[in-house]
Amino acid sequence: MSYPDKVYLNGSIVNSADAKVSVFDRGFIFGDGLYEVMVQINGRFFYEKEHLERLQSGLQKINIEFDVSLLKNEILTLLKVASLTDKDCMLYIQITRGVAPRQHSFPGDIKPTVMMYAVPKVLPEINTVNAHVITRNDFRWSRCDIKMTSLLGNVMLNEEAMQLECYETILNRDGVFTEASHSNLFFVKNGVVYTHPANEYILNGITRIVVIELCHSLGIEIKETPISLAELNTIDEAFLTGTSTQIAAIQQIDDYKLYTGNEKGPVTQRLQEAFLKLR
Amino acid sequence: MSYPDKVYLNGSIVNSADAKVSVFDRGFIFGDGLYEVMVQINGRFFYEKEHLERLQSGLQKINIEFDVSLLKNEILTLLKVASLTDKDCMLYIQITRGVAPRQHSFPGDIKPTVMMYAVPKVLPEINTVNAHVITRNDFRWSRCDIKMTSLLGNVMLNEEAMQLECYETILNRDGVFTEASHSNLFFVKNGVVYTHPANEYILNGITRIVVIELCHSLGIEIKETPISLAELNTIDEAFLTGTSTQIAAIQQIDDYKLYTGNEKGPVTQRLQEAFLKLR
Repeated sequence: MSYPDKVYLNGSIVNSADAKVSVFDRGFIFGDGLYEVMVQINGRFFYEKEHLERLQSGLQKINIEFDVSLLKNEILTLLKVASLTDKDCMLYIQITRGVAPRQHSFPGDIKPTVMMYAVPKVLPEINTVNAHVITRNDFRWSRCDIKMTSLLGNVMLNEEAMQLECYETILNRDGVFTEASHSNLFFVKNGVVYTHPANEYILNGITRIVVIELCHSLGIEIKETPISLAELNTIDEAFLTGTSTQIAAIQQIDDYKLYTGNEKGPVTQRLQEAFLKLR
Repeated sequence: MSYPDKVYLNGSIVNSADAKVSVFDRGFIFGDGLYEVMVQINGRFFYEKEHLERLQSGLQKINIEFDVSLLKNEILTLLKVASLTDKDCMLYIQITRGVAPRQHSFPGDIKPTVMMYAVPKVLPEINTVNAHVITRNDFRWSRCDIKMTSLLGNVMLNEEAMQLECYETILNRDGVFTEASHSNLFFVKNGVVYTHPANEYILNGITRIVVIELCHSLGIEIKETPISLAELNTIDEAFLTGTSTQIAAIQQIDDYKLYTGNEKGPVTQRLQEAFLKLR
């Protein structure tokens, strides 16, 4: 990983090294903000409308007043200055409540902090990963539907996978699988695709929504029903989804091997191929 | 609330307006940090050792390598520059994992960011508040023992109390009261003091620990046993504890009135008086 050249910060575009916020930014003091990640492929942001709508809806959930549509021109300007117009890249957007003396409750008149940057990123046509993942108890809060920057839980859970040289940490809560530390989780069992319903225990990923739609259009039965820990040894396939993850096949969950070598489940493969065609 | 004059940031003391961190500080991007608050009363920090030990222990829990004992001299210097040596004041300390390109897992070589500031604060001898509080479902994570800066949940819960012109939001999880949005919670029932055990559902506040010790020394029976929602109408007294809250009597919980006017429960009052003597 490396820093981007340019950062958009509250209307200005500055060099990375100069992109600084007040230590009293509630993003720094309280993790009081949201973020969004989009990828540009072949000159257009993939599902841009859906990403920006989710950001707007998240801001409403936590009562940050900001009109996301104002970002559209700013993104174009940022890409231009960063020499990434039309280039394959990843855009990160973070909006925090803004700067104020520290107290938990919100100040009345506060101007949100907006930070964005883009880095070159070429996603593979199909994610070739055959992921080994670990399972952990989902100890995060119960509002995982909010894409917040208060991410210490996700960080700790992801770090455990990295320490074990695994690709991701998949999470379970109250005996059922929810999602992963920074991606969504799907299973396949007897030809039926399963994923946790989009309630307050998961982030309703844009790629998750797209994969569910793909199942419908491909005539693959899809159930938004959680898979329990006890059912793990009855599943045939599993995969992760996410904006830069796209669709990543899971090869092994803890000690439970689903596939070996470069083998992949047929449903996973079919979805990966169909997903590519959406570009 | 107002900004402090001076801020300590990574070894330098700067004016508040100049105290800035990189947008790539993991404190800003991930809420990947811890904080601590101490008050200086009559020229000494109240339970300084306990606060700094908790900070050190928290850093170990989330694998941030930093020797908190290095702060002692820095605090003295900060107080001097801020003209607060020996003055009653509140000290805020925040340590984040440091600055790195954004990815969830920890970089190997990263230097923690240390930020501190002090503001004049004279705590009343006894907190005269007769608090009205609201109850809400505790939807925060299950590692509330970690005093992290990923506080959006606490912020949202506290904000609800402020909107309703209440003093605090007390929380319940799985049918029992845990703590409040930024303080600990005690009940009194038939002369016995109750508080939630110090497990992963609450922050083990220094004032909480002191109040438990006070109960022991005063011969007041204390049980670290949670009070259930169903028991609410059987309790005689309730109070909150915290570093700047000290001991705050609760007068009303939602619509349930415990006291009126300036009345306070006898156990609460006795503990408040004994707490004052610790200064």
